[in-house]
Amino acid sequence: MDTDIIKSHIERLSRLDCRGMYRNDFLLTWEKSDDEVHATFIVAEIIRELRQQNISCRIFDSGLGISLFRDQSTRTRFSFASACNLLGLALQDLDEGKSQIAHGETIRETANMISFMGDVIGIRDDMYIGKGNAYMREVARSVAEGFQEKILEQRPTLINLQCDIDHPTQSMSDMLHLVNTFGGIENLKGKKIAMSWAYSPSYGKPLSVPQGVIGLMTRFGMEVVLAHPHGYEVMPEVSQIAAKNAAASGGSFTTTHSMEKAFESAHIVYPKSWAPFAAMEKRTVLFGNNDFDGIKALEKELLDQNATHQGWECTEELMAQTHEGNALYMHCLPADITGVSCKNGEVAASVFDRYRKPLYRQASYKPYIIAAMILLSKMKSPADTLDRLLETATPRIRETA
Amino acid sequence: MDTDIIKSHIERLSRLDCRGMYRNDFLLTWEKSDDEVHATFIVAEIIRELRQQNISCRIFDSGLGISLFRDQSTRTRFSFASACNLLGLALQDLDEGKSQIAHGETIRETANMISFMGDVIGIRDDMYIGKGNAYMREVARSVAEGFQEKILEQRPTLINLQCDIDHPTQSMSDMLHLVNTFGGIENLKGKKIAMSWAYSPSYGKPLSVPQGVIGLMTRFGMEVVLAHPHGYEVMPEVSQIAAKNAAASGGSFTTTHSMEKAFESAHIVYPKSWAPFAAMEKRTVLFGNNDFDGIKALEKELLDQNATHQGWECTEELMAQTHEGNALYMHCLPADITGVSCKNGEVAASVFDRYRKPLYRQASYKPYIIAAMILLSKMKSPADTLDRLLETATPRIRETA
Amino acid sequence: MDTDIIKSHIERLSRLDCRGMYRNDFLLTWEKSDDEVHATFIVAEIIRELRQQNISCRIFDSGLGISLFRDQSTRTRFSFASACNLLGLALQDLDEGKSQIAHGETIRETANMISFMGDVIGIRDDMYIGKGNAYMREVARSVAEGFQEKILEQRPTLINLQCDIDHPTQSMSDMLHLVNTFGGIENLKGKKIAMSWAYSPSYGKPLSVPQGVIGLMTRFGMEVVLAHPHGYEVMPEVSQIAAKNAAASGGSFTTTHSMEKAFESAHIVYPKSWAPFAAMEKRTVLFGNNDFDGIKALEKELLDQNATHQGWECTEELMAQTHEGNALYMHCLPADITGVSCKNGEVAASVFDRYRKPLYRQASYKPYIIAAMILLSKMKSPADTLDRLLETATPRIRETA
Repeated sequence: MDTDIIKSHIERLSRLDCRGMYRNDFLLTWEKSDDEVHATFIVAEIIRELRQQNISCRIFDSGLGISLFRDQSTRTRFSFASACNLLGLALQDLDEGKSQIAHGETIRETANMISFMGDVIGIRDDMYIGKGNAYMREVARSVAEGFQEKILEQRPTLINLQCDIDHPTQSMSDMLHLVNTFGGIENLKGKKIAMSWAYSPSYGKPLSVPQGVIGLMTRFGMEVVLAHPHGYEVMPEVSQIAAKNAAASGGSFTTTHSMEKAFESAHIVYPKSWAPFAAMEKRTVLFGNNDFDGIKALEKELLDQNATHQGWECTEELMAQTHEGNALYMHCLPADITGVSCKNGEVAASVFDRYRKPLYRQASYKPYIIAAMILLSKMKSPADTLDRLLETATPRIRETA
Repeated sequence: MDTDIIKSHIERLSRLDCRGMYRNDFLLTWEKSDDEVHATFIVAEIIRELRQQNISCRIFDSGLGISLFRDQSTRTRFSFASACNLLGLALQDLDEGKSQIAHGETIRETANMISFMGDVIGIRDDMYIGKGNAYMREVARSVAEGFQEKILEQRPTLINLQCDIDHPTQSMSDMLHLVNTFGGIENLKGKKIAMSWAYSPSYGKPLSVPQGVIGLMTRFGMEVVLAHPHGYEVMPEVSQIAAKNAAASGGSFTTTHSMEKAFESAHIVYPKSWAPFAAMEKRTVLFGNNDFDGIKALEKELLDQNATHQGWECTEELMAQTHEGNALYMHCLPADITGVSCKNGEVAASVFDRYRKPLYRQASYKPYIIAAMILLSKMKSPADTLDRLLETATPRIRETA
Repeated sequence: MDTDIIKSHIERLSRLDCRGMYRNDFLLTWEKSDDEVHATFIVAEIIRELRQQNISCRIFDSGLGISLFRDQSTRTRFSFASACNLLGLALQDLDEGKSQIAHGETIRETANMISFMGDVIGIRDDMYIGKGNAYMREVARSVAEGFQEKILEQRPTLINLQCDIDHPTQSMSDMLHLVNTFGGIENLKGKKIAMSWAYSPSYGKPLSVPQGVIGLMTRFGMEVVLAHPHGYEVMPEVSQIAAKNAAASGGSFTTTHSMEKAFESAHIVYPKSWAPFAAMEKRTVLFGNNDFDGIKALEKELLDQNATHQGWECTEELMAQTHEGNALYMHCLPADITGVSCKNGEVAASVFDRYRKPLYRQASYKPYIIAAMILLSKMKSPADTLDRLLETATPRIRETA
């Protein structure tokens, strides 16, 4: 059994300062130090290696992983379930429709009521600008207080499974995919990545993916280009963070209104539809006022505006303009594929087909990233914990030797 | 590690006769002997201590805990899930909407079909007077018979997660909260507890909470006062049980139509809305006849009647009249808080806020009470089982030492 | 502890060639060799014995069993959940309503996205002729490819939990029930089994049960008679398989349009409603064309046709004509019982009541059959694995000795 790789990963991990992650939440990547981000990647890799070598990663003998999805989800739902299970936690979904929450429970109360034996809480809440992340923070504050007051016997830590601002389990998985594709984090220095808007017939897709990508990828010395039509700006706060990150890491962060320019000589392209931030802000206000006529009018306006940008498609012609005509194509999936899932979409069918295998691999990191986030938030000495898992080497599947 | 407390608890447990709980159901507290009630408290405390000291309570290597909720639930749902998980059972929810039950399966058949590997079944069925508890008994009878006929290889035991008559996991948790707040069960002798109706704009809340409270709290020598407006009587059978209990325990059980009188010098107050029993009985008949006009008329009548009792609110003035102005305020949550969750409710916001911490603690006992009920119904020698858990001391979370 | 039976079962198992089941799916019984079918029965029996003797069958320390039900289910849902749990897998249901599948994910993509940590996938998809089994094969092909491409780190194996063609977990459980009722598989040679259509007021019940029964039961030298009114033919492909099986096994496969003839001297009767195959094929086409008027017209036509066959009921008179008036009555449940669940149904209430116990026992084999299918698809040396479980003898319930 090849345990040398694992041992060297653990050794690297032990040199990083990730004390701040213990009993803490993972809500935005830019709240995490470089050491903490790197520790997350390393732990994800270790867990993947352990599992591949049929070594159990159960650090919990019992305990609950609580999920709350306020929007549809397949891959993140299964990734969270997989991560919890791998570490030994049982999943317990908080289905707001089946609960008494509609009956006027406060956030603080609900957060404590579900957490008596909850070790971790994963939340997706990405529908309204200004709401999702704020909600997560209120839950986190509530359970932190509950723990301090000894109402809760453990501190349930939160994992942001996508909010209005960031989608850290996505961007961290994306980044780990890049690290492995390019053969090491140091090889990403100077590489050009185009995070580009792309046309989709549906409208209103969350901004958290492009925001997550520019907020994270700018930390590794890459040339990060954000491309979109006029009016499709992302949150200004996140643009500022991206610019600051780029300056600190020796990379760059630029924006353009030309998909062609963004793709030119890019090593990595990430074409994806999203909704205009300003319009989404307006929509949140309209919802707050129960102004459904206003929402309808806004939707029509947005769809009309959207329809004028059908040229923003990741075609073979555009791909040919990338570095050696061979940029890594990325997507968080599911993609809107021209002629497959819609008439005109984000990407040409031939491009998507060619990159199917790396796209699936990109998605495959998410369970490990989530497991790493959980482990780092629950273990005081993560390197020691992983060391012991390796030494004990309980088989995940008890086949005969 | 402080294991002396646990050892002394186990020692006390070993002196109690709880043989009748083995392979038996927990449906009504008043069907349980004093020894059995005490055993449940002690086992709950032991499990809590074990978990706090990071000692695993898994007595099952595999097995299913089956839940059936015929009414909304957050805290009881999570409490049951937590208890099952803590003991090593996986939760399997019977969602009647997704099953073929609508297609005419008999209770006996369904009960057996879901129970081939079911160790415990938790049911909430509190909507119709005369129905919920009867349903539970039919399920219990069915699986007991299935076990006897060797159709089932184990006897799935039932836990009443709230029926039309009792809410034993609530009242037992409430009682354990009292025991710990007052420093021992013996200190509750002579204490006055006011179980009082309170106004809520919604109508039709189950009677099982007040009934459960008067049915249980009268067993410990307390002065139990039941207060409600005219017409809000609880089930006469339960009142009789409360009176009998009080006589036997050296306490008292009285009723009053004055919230003020109930609160006067009370050590504990439990103000909560419930529906009039007689009206709920009528409603069950109307439902049975599919008389939806009749139900609408009844609802209107009840809401009108209800609206005349807005004075029944747990205010600061009332709290000031309690023992040293400092009674313990209790509620099963969620409460209807005046000015917060409704215009006029069961309790003033300032009172509720002041007692938030003990209220959350009160709720925190439920997972342990349920776990104790399960353990006592499945283990032939519960003291020995707990002794062995303590000795083995498998860590719940495998952190490094 | 009586382990001799288990040891002799394991010894028999070790002589069978079931290498083809490893990393393979269980979709149709007639795709499995005789050795593989027998191995499934033996493993099911071993697992049942182990569990009865309180020996843990956990071969997985962690891992997911994924379920996808495209039709209502109680017993198969709980059987799959039980089997997964018994082996150590956590259940994760893919609820298509809560996922992004409605948003146009391809089957290949979804299959891979949910399977990163999926060890087994159970699917029920029985609504449309030509669709269910084809869908399962596409999922199987997708994850097999994902495993080959190293997208997936393990090969999730599929279990057919009922499709349009076969219902192997049902027919295999039914057969194991026969083996145990008649005291051994060899005693079934020459026994007559009547798989008969029976009247039910509902229409459109899947054909997979009768098809599964004639496709499997013909392999053991039995006289298999398929009885139904004119127009209620099953899929011709399955009839051909049944005929071929019967020829090979030294039994017979005949069809008749008389329930009386089928029951005459039968040792086993299985009266059950199903929809006419040709009509179901037509219905699938109509659905494909969104021809809802056509569907309504077809339904009316079928119900009218159906109503003319109310004489097809399993009555006491018919039962009296069976072998010694004492044939084993079988049903997959729930049955339509005359005067109980409907006015006129598949079976007389007195017959059903008399056979309630064996009917429940028949159902009780399903969790074990599913567990056996999973184990045989995941373990390279199943006999060695089971040997080790027996030797280790970890208790399922940790009661004191």
